[in-house]
Amino acid sequence: MSNPFFKNHGPILISDILKSFNIKVSVINLNQEIKDIKDLYSSKNDEITFYHSKKYKEVAKSTKASFCITTELLKKDLPNNCVPLVVDNVLISVSKLTEKFYPDSINDNFDDTAIDIVKTKFQYKVKHGNNVLVGENVSIGSNCQIGHNVILEKNISIGNNCSIGSNTVIRNCIINNNVKVLDNCVIGKHGFGFFPINNRNYRYPHIGIVLIEDNCEIGCGSTIDRGSMSNTVIGKNTYLDNQIHIAHNVKIGENSIIAGQVGIAGSSTIGNNVRIGGQAGISGHLKIGNNVEIGGRSGVIKDIPDNSKVMGYPAKNIRDFLKENR
Amino acid sequence: MSNPFFKNHGPILISDILKSFNIKVSVINLNQEIKDIKDLYSSKNDEITFYHSKKYKEVAKSTKASFCITTELLKKDLPNNCVPLVVDNVLISVSKLTEKFYPDSINDNFDDTAIDIVKTKFQYKVKHGNNVLVGENVSIGSNCQIGHNVILEKNISIGNNCSIGSNTVIRNCIINNNVKVLDNCVIGKHGFGFFPINNRNYRYPHIGIVLIEDNCEIGCGSTIDRGSMSNTVIGKNTYLDNQIHIAHNVKIGENSIIAGQVGIAGSSTIGNNVRIGGQAGISGHLKIGNNVEIGGRSGVIKDIPDNSKVMGYPAKNIRDFLKENR
Amino acid sequence: MSNPFFKNHGPILISDILKSFNIKVSVINLNQEIKDIKDLYSSKNDEITFYHSKKYKEVAKSTKASFCITTELLKKDLPNNCVPLVVDNVLISVSKLTEKFYPDSINDNFDDTAIDIVKTKFQYKVKHGNNVLVGENVSIGSNCQIGHNVILEKNISIGNNCSIGSNTVIRNCIINNNVKVLDNCVIGKHGFGFFPINNRNYRYPHIGIVLIEDNCEIGCGSTIDRGSMSNTVIGKNTYLDNQIHIAHNVKIGENSIIAGQVGIAGSSTIGNNVRIGGQAGISGHLKIGNNVEIGGRSGVIKDIPDNSKVMGYPAKNIRDFLKENR
Repeated sequence: MSNPFFKNHGPILISDILKSFNIKVSVINLNQEIKDIKDLYSSKNDEITFYHSKKYKEVAKSTKASFCITTELLKKDLPNNCVPLVVDNVLISVSKLTEKFYPDSINDNFDDTAIDIVKTKFQYKVKHGNNVLVGENVSIGSNCQIGHNVILEKNISIGNNCSIGSNTVIRNCIINNNVKVLDNCVIGKHGFGFFPINNRNYRYPHIGIVLIEDNCEIGCGSTIDRGSMSNTVIGKNTYLDNQIHIAHNVKIGENSIIAGQVGIAGSSTIGNNVRIGGQAGISGHLKIGNNVEIGGRSGVIKDIPDNSKVMGYPAKNIRDFLKENR
Repeated sequence: MSNPFFKNHGPILISDILKSFNIKVSVINLNQEIKDIKDLYSSKNDEITFYHSKKYKEVAKSTKASFCITTELLKKDLPNNCVPLVVDNVLISVSKLTEKFYPDSINDNFDDTAIDIVKTKFQYKVKHGNNVLVGENVSIGSNCQIGHNVILEKNISIGNNCSIGSNTVIRNCIINNNVKVLDNCVIGKHGFGFFPINNRNYRYPHIGIVLIEDNCEIGCGSTIDRGSMSNTVIGKNTYLDNQIHIAHNVKIGENSIIAGQVGIAGSSTIGNNVRIGGQAGISGHLKIGNNVEIGGRSGVIKDIPDNSKVMGYPAKNIRDFLKENR
Repeated sequence: MSNPFFKNHGPILISDILKSFNIKVSVINLNQEIKDIKDLYSSKNDEITFYHSKKYKEVAKSTKASFCITTELLKKDLPNNCVPLVVDNVLISVSKLTEKFYPDSINDNFDDTAIDIVKTKFQYKVKHGNNVLVGENVSIGSNCQIGHNVILEKNISIGNNCSIGSNTVIRNCIINNNVKVLDNCVIGKHGFGFFPINNRNYRYPHIGIVLIEDNCEIGCGSTIDRGSMSNTVIGKNTYLDNQIHIAHNVKIGENSIIAGQVGIAGSSTIGNNVRIGGQAGISGHLKIGNNVEIGGRSGVIKDIPDNSKVMGYPAKNIRDFLKENR
């Protein structure tokens, strides 16, 4: 979990955490300070983690966290160093607690720290268009071009030789070198992640960022959401066409080519040298291997191994698809 | 038919209406003033309606309208209180007449009444970004945030605690409380409604609005068209992801969740607690029941009853779809 | 090939061309000036062309070009007037050479020649919104409306009675009369055309334009890319709905109707009086005939003859599709 941008408002006393979840646990130092909330794997002493599904059992067994939000059924898997905090709904509790640590990660209202670039240190350093706004904690490398009406909201690092198209809005994003983002994109907003509750849904925090590596191109009108607990990544030299939607936590490898109007749902991983035809869709939480080719308009609903060519809805071997539809 | 925004330029003398359609009718008071044009059901005395398809026969029989634009074949179904005006093409005639009553509803050119918010009464009342424009007949509730470069064109009512993302354009829209509209959306423009005529299509009026109820969220880059004769409605606590297109007259119920790049064609009705996966499409004039789940990329071309789970193109029972494609 | 906008930086000495490709050819006047690079059919004496695939054999045989970039295998088809220049990869060499003739056609960085319309000759001539920018080589006819925040980048000709929606970005585009482009569109950017090379793709030039003929309408959030060697064309009285993507070199005929979220891949040709349902996709390099109807969500992967009705993925006769899926 990489989170260079969101300010951690911790530490939080464990007594405050217990109180807010209405949990009673014996044998505990109520003054212990909890520094952060992380996943099972990366959390350490004095941090809190969460464990909500058996498929993480092996990681849970060796977590270094001092506390773990979990269920009555799962708590037995935790090691002695980790005190289980049993709740009814692990993910909602995690959301609420993450919001306490990172209150700025819930709402993506417009950035009111953004001011006209001509009033900033970038005025002469960066070639820029008209009506460009720059928020707090933004850095821009050398030889960059920032188009008209661009809004660089807070928490952005842009490398060298980058070009940002007009009307594009960016926040919570690291852009490496030689990257082109074309017009009318929105990059780094929170994903479509919330707990559906009647009358009023409950949004969970998105403390990940969008990382766009060297030499990428992002087409006009595309949207790339930042990650919730991990990052959304576009690998080196990967090109995206127009009107593409990349959901939160998606990781795309290097040298991949993604044609117009493709959509990739949350937390899917795409390998290197992958080619995806126009309007194809990839469901969430899938793993697409390296050197995969996905035909235009395909709907991918299961993992695809390396070096495969697929097409169809649901996507299958492309030869079978074409033979059946001759 | 709710039409709070478009100014009715009526009444129009029946003699003028007859002349413009080149119709001759005997036994008539040529000085009668026609106040409005409405559908068969809601029209009253001194109003004009239209009847173009047998499937509305039952409603036609009891219309209260004084006049009805219809065909030679259908006119016999009208009651005695209603004088038939026989034309060659009912819908084109209705369009031309509606345009006479509501001339402002045809063209969606940019709103030239919009001025910088700092020159309006909202300057200090509303938290706003840079370069925000506000047109005539706009109201904004308390505790709202209006992003950079937003254009609130004429005829908008925004409730309390709402957040409008940067670069979004809105007109002819009622937004209730606690609604978030994210960046780069276009809401309230006329729908894709016209009569195809070679050399020059004929647009029909859109006098409906977009109504977005409490607690909704509309994702980045989405477009929601206003209704033609009725409204386009997004029900309470319904969440839309990025790059969604909602056509004119669509009505979506409460607590529904619609993932990225979904498109819903004109006049379809979606129930409550409906979940639609990414990139799915719903054809026009369909009825999707309550508690329906529609798999990602599905193409729905017929009505779906309550509590169904469907997937595929065309969409069918999801179990059948997955079994056939194992 | 029509290219009214991109400045030809030629002529280039043939000796410089040979040197840059590291080619040695005997019996040649090294001081010959090469004026332009064109396709096999339209190139003339003192121009250079290219021949990379056997399917152009017949045109190759009668090319008028003085030189032709080609392969060892294909060079035998060229006539005596045309000196073959043998390279490893014809298309990459063509790209590199076209870039020498037309260096401005590679990068679509924001137009830094664009200035506020109130500082131009259009200030009083054209009805315009707030914050409108106009670049070099732009002409606007009478009775036009240019919306707020519109960016008319360089190389645009707009006819009479046109309306450009707010936030739209246009460049390299000829718009005829009575055209409406709605909000948030991007028109005339380079297509998704490049040679995939690991570590750094190689973009090829786009010296075509977008031509939008009389009476067209382009919906909100649409993107229309300009052509590479030919133009992208939207024929007379053709209407596009919202969020449509038209790739480079696509040619759409007259009186066609294309519903929301449709995508048409590069170099496909669509006939007259064609109707395409929402979210349908057309693969690249296809020919769709006149009077064709394509059902919503269809995926078209082969040519469609005149007067056909198709639906499905892949698209087939609509009766068969509906029968099989009853």
